[in-house]
Parts: sequence; structure tokens; C-alpha cells
Amino acid sequence: MTTCYINGKYKPLSKSFISITDRGFQFSDGVYEVIAIYNDKFVDEILHLNRLKTSLKKLQIKLDLSINQIQNISQKIKKVNSISNGIIYIQVTRGNQSPRDHKYKAKLKPNFIIYSIKKNFKNLDKLAIKGVKTSLYPDIRWLRSDIKSISLLGNVMAANHANKNNCHESILYDHKNNITEGNSSSIWIIKKGVCYTHPITYRILRGCTRNKLISILKSNNLKFEEKVYSIKLLNNADEVFMTSATNFIMPIIKVDNHKIGNGKPGPISLKLRQEFIKAI
Amino acid sequence: MTTCYINGKYKPLSKSFISITDRGFQFSDGVYEVIAIYNDKFVDEILHLNRLKTSLKKLQIKLDLSINQIQNISQKIKKVNSISNGIIYIQVTRGNQSPRDHKYKAKLKPNFIIYSIKKNFKNLDKLAIKGVKTSLYPDIRWLRSDIKSISLLGNVMAANHANKNNCHESILYDHKNNITEGNSSSIWIIKKGVCYTHPITYRILRGCTRNKLISILKSNNLKFEEKVYSIKLLNNADEVFMTSATNFIMPIIKVDNHKIGNGKPGPISLKLRQEFIKAI
Repeated sequence: MTTCYINGKYKPLSKSFISITDRGFQFSDGVYEVIAIYNDKFVDEILHLNRLKTSLKKLQIKLDLSINQIQNISQKIKKVNSISNGIIYIQVTRGNQSPRDHKYKAKLKPNFIIYSIKKNFKNLDKLAIKGVKTSLYPDIRWLRSDIKSISLLGNVMAANHANKNNCHESILYDHKNNITEGNSSSIWIIKKGVCYTHPITYRILRGCTRNKLISILKSNNLKFEEKVYSIKLLNNADEVFMTSATNFIMPIIKVDNHKIGNGKPGPISLKLRQEFIKAI
Repeated sequence: MTTCYINGKYKPLSKSFISITDRGFQFSDGVYEVIAIYNDKFVDEILHLNRLKTSLKKLQIKLDLSINQIQNISQKIKKVNSISNGIIYIQVTRGNQSPRDHKYKAKLKPNFIIYSIKKNFKNLDKLAIKGVKTSLYPDIRWLRSDIKSISLLGNVMAANHANKNNCHESILYDHKNNITEGNSSSIWIIKKGVCYTHPITYRILRGCTRNKLISILKSNNLKFEEKVYSIKLLNNADEVFMTSATNFIMPIIKVDNHKIGNGKPGPISLKLRQEFIKAI
């Protein structure tokens, strides 16, 4: 049984309910974060909680909880659910509003939940050694992907496309055939020793794993550039990998029917995964 | 007290709850409809319920209720809540899924709710005589606006922009400065006796009021064309109006600081509103 923190109370997840007048439920008017717990340690907790605060600010949702208070709740959830490896899921919505109206009232009380999900990272280690398959899907998400909102139906459709094609992830491309992100990851390519990923714009999320990897690239003297790149460049890359809070660094060996390099995880990708795991 | 139908039961709205593992709550993975009740009659009920079925089909959500069954529930909600004028709100989400995953499981049981909200349409009649103000806002919604989903955060931000500027609605424009829709309406212009609105594409919703109005235009021998038009053409239109399930036909007299025509509701817009109300 998983315990969930919901608006000040600790309850079984199976008994954690929200009003149907919640604006998250009716309008996807809310934000979330996923924080990995790896060998009993929170990974990039402060980065994630700072981003949560940024997302809330961008949507003018006023949450009456400090980062420190959220940390304490997360710590308690980790403990009561005995999580050594897994994730902490945090969701904040603008609150209940009745009658329903697109226009939100100024002083709503946000709904706030935290719970945890167990995860076996060893399975992901095994997967990383083999590398994962991906599939291309049009980026139909809303145009404010810089906000980590629960307005995720575009991501869900992309993830379902991946699922149907026995792929680990979909890689999203825009109307100019440029790569933006994965359905829930950042996408990276390596070409002639240089590592590229999409620059920070309103089209992509400022990934916490992305941030940490950039530091690792720098400290390993690997060439790195933020650049918009095309499907063509993706297909012709020497290596491709994805990053996310739960996948860490995951080598990509196939994009639809197209093999990346020799069809095996690239040596730099694997090295970066090792460096990342060392760092957390 | 409002009564709500939720997954087979009739409950007070204040006691209608959904699991926090609902995919609507966590991923905006669901759809909705709003049906007006005007002087005790449902307006375009079958059009709305057919559209609900279409939205569900596009998202591969399998709802085990026929249109006839939904009509019966709506009828009962109307009765127990004594609604002569108002709306019926219907929301269907893909169902509860745990552990959380963007990829959805095949055989989830959808969550289904119907409730009602009272509305005073006479206030809207008064508003229509004066006309309403609007404001421009970038169309940041996801790129499948043809699906009436609850992935509405872009609409919410646009509606809030309207609210802050004391406007009734925001008018959305795309990256080419063309008008797509309002934050929850279709937008129409009249220029030299011809009525224009955006053609049906993935960028806009196949509005039920839009459909009905097209029939009215035809039976009144008014020239009508589906055409993509720019902000410039909007500003220089002779008349501008919006249509929606609750606003019916609402004349627009201002777009930001720019007056439309002489700044009063256009004669054709007002006539069309009368014709529409006659028809329902």
C-alpha cells in the first residue's frame, strides 16, 4: 500500500481523492515534478523543486509551502513507503472552482499531492547496455513546454505511438522537421565528437538531468553546443541518447527503421551514463 | 445543492470525487462537452454527443455508454437540479492508472461525470445589445484543437489574459498572425457582406454553434466562406462576432484598443443572433 500526502493529510493512495471541480481535473491547470530516489538519495531534489516554483510562478499559482516544507513531506513519503529506489511524484493544481469557468479566480487554494512509486533502476541499467528503440512523432504539444504542466495529452499520444511500435520513447519533430524533445525526455546527438541538444526556448523543458549532464560534459572536456537540429541530422548522428529524471542517460540505437551508427549504444553515451550515475 | 452523475451514481457535487490516479487529473487525458439548456430545451444535444463520441474515438477512449444512455442521464440531471436555463457539463477521462505512466494501458475503465450549472441567458442578451470587448493572445494551445480535450491550459491562459484586460474573450492568432479561434469560441468576421470563419482543420474545433450558424447563413442567403484571415483583416472587418454553446452569437465591438466598425454591434450580427435564438 502506497501512502500519499494530499492537502495536509497522509492517506492510502487508493483513498486519495480530488474534487471533480479541481481545475487540474477540468482544465489541466496545474504543474508537476518527478524526482528520482537512487540508492536512498534524492537526485537533483533542489533543481526539481526550484523548477516547480518556476512553473507555479509562470502560471501565477500561489502555493503556500516552502521548498523546505516540500522536502520534509517528500522525506516522510520516502520513509513511510520504504523507497530506496523509485520516484517522488509531486502535483500542484490551481484548486477547486465552481461554477466551472476558463477564467480563474484570484484566491483559490491549490491542491497539492506527493506520493512515491517504486522503480527498479537495475532494469534500466540492463536496458542501457542494449540501447533503446524510438519512433518519430509530430510535436503537437502546446507551445509552452518550458512550463512543466499537466497539459500532457500531446505527450500521451506520442508515448502511446511509441508503445504501439514497441519503442521506449517517441522523438518529437516540429513543422520544420526539427527535433524538439522526446515525449518525456531531452534528446541529444553526437556528431564528430560534438554533443548537440535543442537550446532552451518555450518549446522545451529546462531539464534537470539535461542541466547536470551539461556540467558533466564540461568537466570531461567534451565539446557541447545548444543547436536546433533536423531529423536528417538525427538519423546521421554517430550517437543518439535521451536524458530524463528516471532514465538518466539512455542510449538510442534506432529511430523507426533507421539504425543509429552501427546499431549499438555509442561509447560516449555509455561513458556519460557511468559519469552521471557516479555523480548522483 | 447541485447533483452530479459520477460513474453510475448520483451524488452532491460537493461530494463528487475522483482518484488522484485518474489520467484526466494527471495527464489531461480526457474530453468534455458543454450543452446549453435554453428555456427547458437542450440545444443541439445530438450534435454535441456525436462530437463527444468523435473526440473519444480520436483518443481511443472506449466509453461503454450509448448516446441514448447519456441523454437519459442528462435529462435526469436537468430534472433533479431544476435547470430551465443553464448548461450540462460532461467529462470523460481515460480512467485510473497506477503506477503513473505516459503510456496508457489498453483496458482502463473511463471515469464519466455529468452535472449542470445554472445560467442566466437574459444577461447574455443584454450583453449582446452592447457588444463585447476582446483582446488578442497568441495561440499556444496544442495542435489538435479538433479534439475537444481537457488539455486546456493554453485556453485558460488566454481566458485569464482576457479577464485581466476586462475583456469577454481572447482572440487567438498563430505564428503567421492569422486568427484561429477564441479562447472558447469560434470567431467570425463580416466584410463587404461576406461572412468568413476559419476552415475546419486540426487547429480548430468543429463548433456545434458554428455548424448551426452556417445553416442559418445559407437559409438567409448570406454569403459565407471558410477562409484563413489575418489580424489585419479582423481589425478592418465591418462586423466581428463570436459563437459558442453558451454565448450563442455574440457581437464583438473592440479588439484591444481597436474599434470594430463604428464600435457598436453590427446589424447582421444582431440579426443572426435573433435567427439563432428563434431556431433553438
